[in-house]
Amino acid sequence: MTTSAEPKGAASGLPPVHVIGTGLIGTSVGLALRATGVDVSLEDQSETSVALARDLGAGRITGEVAPGLVVVATPPDVAPTLVQEALRRWPEAVVTDVTSVKQVVLADIVRSGVPMDRYVGSHPMAGRERSGAISGRADLFEGRAWVLCPHETTQSRATELVGRLARATGAAVSTLSPHDHDAAVAAVSHVPQVAASLVAARLEHLSEQAIGLAGQGVRDVTRIAASDPGLWTQILSGNAPAVAAILRDLSADVTRVVAALEALGGEANVADAPGARAVLARSIADGNAGHSRIPGKHGAGTATYAVVSVVVDDSPGELARLLAEIGEEGVNLEDLRLDHGIGLPFGLAEVHVLPQVAGPLTEALQSRGWQIHG
Amino acid sequence: MTTSAEPKGAASGLPPVHVIGTGLIGTSVGLALRATGVDVSLEDQSETSVALARDLGAGRITGEVAPGLVVVATPPDVAPTLVQEALRRWPEAVVTDVTSVKQVVLADIVRSGVPMDRYVGSHPMAGRERSGAISGRADLFEGRAWVLCPHETTQSRATELVGRLARATGAAVSTLSPHDHDAAVAAVSHVPQVAASLVAARLEHLSEQAIGLAGQGVRDVTRIAASDPGLWTQILSGNAPAVAAILRDLSADVTRVVAALEALGGEANVADAPGARAVLARSIADGNAGHSRIPGKHGAGTATYAVVSVVVDDSPGELARLLAEIGEEGVNLEDLRLDHGIGLPFGLAEVHVLPQVAGPLTEALQSRGWQIHG
Repeated sequence: MTTSAEPKGAASGLPPVHVIGTGLIGTSVGLALRATGVDVSLEDQSETSVALARDLGAGRITGEVAPGLVVVATPPDVAPTLVQEALRRWPEAVVTDVTSVKQVVLADIVRSGVPMDRYVGSHPMAGRERSGAISGRADLFEGRAWVLCPHETTQSRATELVGRLARATGAAVSTLSPHDHDAAVAAVSHVPQVAASLVAARLEHLSEQAIGLAGQGVRDVTRIAASDPGLWTQILSGNAPAVAAILRDLSADVTRVVAALEALGGEANVADAPGARAVLARSIADGNAGHSRIPGKHGAGTATYAVVSVVVDDSPGELARLLAEIGEEGVNLEDLRLDHGIGLPFGLAEVHVLPQVAGPLTEALQSRGWQIHG
Repeated sequence: MTTSAEPKGAASGLPPVHVIGTGLIGTSVGLALRATGVDVSLEDQSETSVALARDLGAGRITGEVAPGLVVVATPPDVAPTLVQEALRRWPEAVVTDVTSVKQVVLADIVRSGVPMDRYVGSHPMAGRERSGAISGRADLFEGRAWVLCPHETTQSRATELVGRLARATGAAVSTLSPHDHDAAVAAVSHVPQVAASLVAARLEHLSEQAIGLAGQGVRDVTRIAASDPGLWTQILSGNAPAVAAILRDLSADVTRVVAALEALGGEANVADAPGARAVLARSIADGNAGHSRIPGKHGAGTATYAVVSVVVDDSPGELARLLAEIGEEGVNLEDLRLDHGIGLPFGLAEVHVLPQVAGPLTEALQSRGWQIHG
């Protein structure tokens, strides 16, 4: 192996890594580590899967080297048992798992009574719509968060080593307690999923004409409602208390909004109208406040961009020409959304840019002949 | 006026149009109609606003010509009174309003006892984050839906005339009863807004680290939570019964999911687990079914696109280069999303294309040196 092929491996200084479970995540961990020159061995209950992962270049299957770090990359139902076994099989190795919920896994390991100071749970926040070794990618974790969840007795060297593994795959490392991790993903991932699914379910029986009025708003709100029921049943089951806690609060909010709407919709309660309107206004305003907390690009904190909407003909190359000209103006695109009109051969490109360049960009595009919309 | 300046006007054959209310919508109607050569007169309780709309080219302020069509473009609270006045002032004219909720306006007009066969409510589904005449645009309605809501005694010539007006502005016309309109926008617009706001509100008090785990999913679900509380209080109040009806169903769904999560999270109810998991799986599956009903591009029915994820350096022109090369391959982009990684100087461009071209496009881009992700 040439020096240029292993700069990250040299920098990571990782010991031999043993991966148990060669599905999407395990195989991708192996591929990412092999690309940096780390010695990776693989194990799976399926001989076909582990052979495929090896053939894809994710690591070797057998070997005499005792691993310094074991990654359990299996579904949550078997992960605790495999973590316990790994802690016993390799008395010096640090062991992590990569399941997307951390407290249930930790509780299972605690109940087993195995010494667990070499265990630290973790969660690479990367996934794909496909699964299995065949879907594994060396770059699956690049730019994604990888959360470390040390418990009370976790050795600092264990946390440090798993952090180095995560960084070697290109991930951005952060640290949360198992409880805080589960509460965080309940709020930023699991509850939004439930809400998107339930809102989308209400669209199922609309008439063709009614659903035809759907615009970009409902499209965005329900995009993740296309997710896999089997996978999400596992995720929600594994984080049931944290998800239920937020959903109970959300349910109380919905009930309050419904009561306000009933007060406004009925003839009898006109006296309640100002209070009911205040409930509605407060609900939307609280949403503004929560929305403003979501980090912008690159996790660099909240940024508010200006939007320049440009009419773009629906033909190959037109959007490219627009973006090329934006580049020629020296303007960096922060985000881009396409909003297609109904029954017309053009769309709107919503170009998100830093506020200070929106004015000059609008003028520049107009002088280049683009039609600015709105 | 030259012939080339009024092709749409000639085609629309619209009589003189009188616009009452020169805010965003009224001014934009005037601008759009003037651009097609229609005779437009303007009226507003604010002399400043109507003068500004005139100066922007939306129409003239006074004139002896009796209008054939009157557009009431005011907030819902004054629209019914102004519709009644217009029906009395011009006994031959067709009258429409453009408020975003139709039943409350209609009920108010019915109560007044005015003959209303010349009235047809309508709703151009176009808006902007800014308001007032100054924000008016001749192209505001291009490619947007404009819903006609005739009631039981509406003359067919009235519906036909307002439809011609809508088409003259570039809108795509559809027809729904006032009840069906309000139910439809409750499902595809108002309830998604409430859900997005309530989910976003739950993010307000998260720790920095927790909110730092937010990804594209929650960003999409909560994007419209940035909307204006004052505007949305009016909209929700005006469609209170229809929104409340769907929210009550949604609330029952949330309660069912919470009960399932509580059964799964508690130790006592292990026997309930299979049933509880079925509730979760059904909720996500129903969301799949509802999501699949949302029309794709151009309102042309549901389309499922394949996604090719390409790693793009975060520098001006790189995305343009990618899209130019996609155009060179003869591939039409159906949608595009940018997904930026955390702490890394690149992003993922999610290129949505027709399924049959995803494979060839992936190969073509790889041979051009692009890194395909996932």
